[in-house]
Amino acid sequence: MRVDLWIDNVRIYNGYFKKFIPGNAAVLDGKFLYIGTRSADSFEVDQVLDGRGMYLIPGLIDIHLHIESTMVTPAAFSHGLIQNGVTTIVPEPHEMANVFGLSGVKAMIRASEHCVADMFYAIPSSVPATSMETTGGAMEIDDMDELLRTEDIICLGEIMNYVDVIHAPDSKTNRILQHIRERYPHLIIEGHVPKLLDLDLHRIIYAGVDSDHTHQSIEGMEARIAAGMFIEIQEKSMTQEVIDYLNTHEVSEHFCFVTDDVMADSFQRRGHLNHIVRKAIRMGMAPEKAIYAGTFTPARRMRMHDRGVIAPGKIADFLLVSSLEELAIDQVYKNGSKVYSAGEEYKPVPSAYKFPDHFYRSVKLPLLTEADFAAHAEVENGRYACRVMMVKDGSTFTEELVGEMEARGGKLIWEESPYGLIATFERYGVNGNRAYGFIGGDTIKRGAVATTYSHDNHNLLVVGHNPADMMLAANTVISGQGGFCAVENGRILANLALPVGGILSEKPLAELAEEVEQLRRALEALGYCHYNPIMSISTHSLPVSPALKITDYGLIDVNKGKVVSLLV
Amino acid sequence: MRVDLWIDNVRIYNGYFKKFIPGNAAVLDGKFLYIGTRSADSFEVDQVLDGRGMYLIPGLIDIHLHIESTMVTPAAFSHGLIQNGVTTIVPEPHEMANVFGLSGVKAMIRASEHCVADMFYAIPSSVPATSMETTGGAMEIDDMDELLRTEDIICLGEIMNYVDVIHAPDSKTNRILQHIRERYPHLIIEGHVPKLLDLDLHRIIYAGVDSDHTHQSIEGMEARIAAGMFIEIQEKSMTQEVIDYLNTHEVSEHFCFVTDDVMADSFQRRGHLNHIVRKAIRMGMAPEKAIYAGTFTPARRMRMHDRGVIAPGKIADFLLVSSLEELAIDQVYKNGSKVYSAGEEYKPVPSAYKFPDHFYRSVKLPLLTEADFAAHAEVENGRYACRVMMVKDGSTFTEELVGEMEARGGKLIWEESPYGLIATFERYGVNGNRAYGFIGGDTIKRGAVATTYSHDNHNLLVVGHNPADMMLAANTVISGQGGFCAVENGRILANLALPVGGILSEKPLAELAEEVEQLRRALEALGYCHYNPIMSISTHSLPVSPALKITDYGLIDVNKGKVVSLLV
Repeated sequence: MRVDLWIDNVRIYNGYFKKFIPGNAAVLDGKFLYIGTRSADSFEVDQVLDGRGMYLIPGLIDIHLHIESTMVTPAAFSHGLIQNGVTTIVPEPHEMANVFGLSGVKAMIRASEHCVADMFYAIPSSVPATSMETTGGAMEIDDMDELLRTEDIICLGEIMNYVDVIHAPDSKTNRILQHIRERYPHLIIEGHVPKLLDLDLHRIIYAGVDSDHTHQSIEGMEARIAAGMFIEIQEKSMTQEVIDYLNTHEVSEHFCFVTDDVMADSFQRRGHLNHIVRKAIRMGMAPEKAIYAGTFTPARRMRMHDRGVIAPGKIADFLLVSSLEELAIDQVYKNGSKVYSAGEEYKPVPSAYKFPDHFYRSVKLPLLTEADFAAHAEVENGRYACRVMMVKDGSTFTEELVGEMEARGGKLIWEESPYGLIATFERYGVNGNRAYGFIGGDTIKRGAVATTYSHDNHNLLVVGHNPADMMLAANTVISGQGGFCAVENGRILANLALPVGGILSEKPLAELAEEVEQLRRALEALGYCHYNPIMSISTHSLPVSPALKITDYGLIDVNKGKVVSLLV
Repeated sequence: MRVDLWIDNVRIYNGYFKKFIPGNAAVLDGKFLYIGTRSADSFEVDQVLDGRGMYLIPGLIDIHLHIESTMVTPAAFSHGLIQNGVTTIVPEPHEMANVFGLSGVKAMIRASEHCVADMFYAIPSSVPATSMETTGGAMEIDDMDELLRTEDIICLGEIMNYVDVIHAPDSKTNRILQHIRERYPHLIIEGHVPKLLDLDLHRIIYAGVDSDHTHQSIEGMEARIAAGMFIEIQEKSMTQEVIDYLNTHEVSEHFCFVTDDVMADSFQRRGHLNHIVRKAIRMGMAPEKAIYAGTFTPARRMRMHDRGVIAPGKIADFLLVSSLEELAIDQVYKNGSKVYSAGEEYKPVPSAYKFPDHFYRSVKLPLLTEADFAAHAEVENGRYACRVMMVKDGSTFTEELVGEMEARGGKLIWEESPYGLIATFERYGVNGNRAYGFIGGDTIKRGAVATTYSHDNHNLLVVGHNPADMMLAANTVISGQGGFCAVENGRILANLALPVGGILSEKPLAELAEEVEQLRRALEALGYCHYNPIMSISTHSLPVSPALKITDYGLIDVNKGKVVSLLV
């Protein structure tokens, strides 16, 4: 019989037995037809790929990520994915939904349609993430119905507000969960449930949320698996302890690897999901097991029964890998066609998709003045105990510290304190909210940073040590309709332009990666001491990540799920 | 918080870790809410079940079976299931479809609606199983669309005609497969692919058929799993070699147990899927592994994500088991409510459902005469080489033997040969077809048997050693509108009435079981030497089970997929 592609002489990854088996393979109409020891003579072969004894593994599958974290468009993202062997992703356009609501989600889906990598979308379930922030868009139940009716939706994206799920039966999150479960009982529901254990964990699962991709401890991971959760391991969960646990316990069916958020420079320098798989191998996981968690289990979790494994009838998305330990990718095939070869030029192709005009006019703020960076407080002169957001290296969590601050003339004189100011300005023209807090720890020690890339509300967030630099950073971002700007002594150290919704660039990945590196270096030059200063700063406004955060509503005690005052 | 049921002091089967963990469990609204070491004090408890240290395991799930094999109605079947701990099944009403087509399928679904056990239906995909037999009904593509539109269908039932799938691109089976895969790309497609290997096996899987429940050899099973097939192990596959293989290889994810066909007497005496699980344990499989294959993997295969495991949010279908080795069932709960207790009376409840009137008038044959049991052949007098269907103990397969037969006066004088006569009469009033063959081996040695319970066409099948007994057996079945009758020397030894479509009784399971035992004894009294003589005889007309079978079209060479002549 006729076949389109004959793959000769490869060591083929068998996902069912989790081992490599030497042999050949045949592809017909974009799907594997045959895998085994027959020779090409059994078929009429159109095209031959000489595998030269290399490893044949399925295209990698990443089921939890946000394209917006890379600050590029789907086209640029896909281009990056393919050269890293990632052929299928499940993006959740949570940030575009926070900025533009339903139209942000639809724009991302449209922008993905002609990409080489397959993108199956998750509906952002938690927009806004809490009722304690102002966003440009919201995802309501009607919007979800609309998406499920008109688009090829694969799951409900991460339920973030686990506090409401457990304790507020009438909350928006519970109304969404109830609606989805009644109307779409088979829809997968993804979760974001850091640190939950015991009855609270079981109640979240009972509510239908049965995965978690947050930072995992051994105890938490074991409790989650035992209660039926699927674990999505992202890089920050990859401690030696966790990897050792995964290696020594029979839990291969219950976890996969995901990237969640990959900065452009990291993407360009280290890769994408392939970096995670490679890292697991370097940390001692058997390649056969690490590949399983990058192909088989993510496909099964998302019920993508047509991929994730090399077998008859499965989509012929595959990689030829020359070194298993290094996961060195020689070639990438999508639907049986070559889409990347290490030995050939690989140029970015400009996207055919154009975002709507108003996506480039989303920062609705006037230019600010130095006076906008004063911390007013209706108190008499004296010293006051204040809440301070303490930034910690190693995670996006912060801690609350009670520090002392001098009050004079109705203002807290933060400039004279050991702390910096953090301020946020609602930027969608909704209510003009603004809020102020104090910040210390492993953050910048001088100058200022401003950004509209601030999870999840993407209001204008400004951190700094003097009003002049803060004003310059803020106004640079406002003038550019969004971005990330670092300033010291009146000088712009870095300015990353993000004109699409204030969160995306339209540049190719490699180009943006350089700008992101420059920004990172600028933040470090300002004294920021964090493994990922950009992610760190952009999650100061994320009120679902413990412990003290800030939104335009004020300081948020995340564990209590409420706004707290600046003064204790 | 309030819970409906508190289960105290049990050893709880955790399907994710495949082990028992001591603890307690809480049920709310028919689903497990909490499993762990908390005490009842944490909850407002409505009802308490004292587990007395027993084992708590999920309700058993059987994803491949034919209710008609037990010859009872869904109500009687459900009654039998529950006391054996089987709480969910996937029946394929293949036989009712062969007799009545779409209306037979719909009748079975309606009849299942108020049963305690959950029944999710498979669409009979292969009715008729081949194009070499006449049936009362057929399942066409339109019928399938109708079922998928109006009923809660879980899969496309076993594709039987694997020869056509591979070799006849335009066959009905391929048209069905193509339609289903295009229109319902996520629908599970079940298979029946005995002995296939290598490229033929891969082609079947490429066509979308990715399970097999036929008799498994080690080689076949390994090839199937490696190529992405899910294996459904029924009792006939449970050789020591197969069980040892399953025990010593990491294939737990790739197989489950099923019953396929359970005779009423076996059901009553030994049980149902619990018998299979118990047998696996007795054959050396760890109980934790055997239970996994009776709960977790069948649920996952059928994408029944709401059951098969004891975890928060899963349906509270469970068994309390006092001895793990014996799988001794103390109590059965469905949706959190008690439905069986070993210590309490368990009476059959008559079904509220009534089959349509014409279901009781399906045998459209006149009474037969002795002349109807002559083997005519247009040959001169002499001795001729004839095909003989040789029955073999141990399987439903037969072998072809070439035997000699005397011809006189245009008839083959089978009465003087060492062989018996097998005859089949089309009984739906379609074409009046009839066919004759010779039979030997481990079948009856004297007297006659007649039945309308003859897979898959359910025409009248008569086997015997003299025309008088054959006529009596046949006419007894015709007069009763279907059944199974054994006769010796003009005396009826057993007569099992099957008035619904000629294949089902409406008696309770226990009562029918006695009649089936009586029939079995009668067949054995006639010299039938087979582990299951009823199943054996009723598959003589099954043209998808090798090697020589008979339909109203004539003798069928199953491996070649064609009608062959009586004379060689």
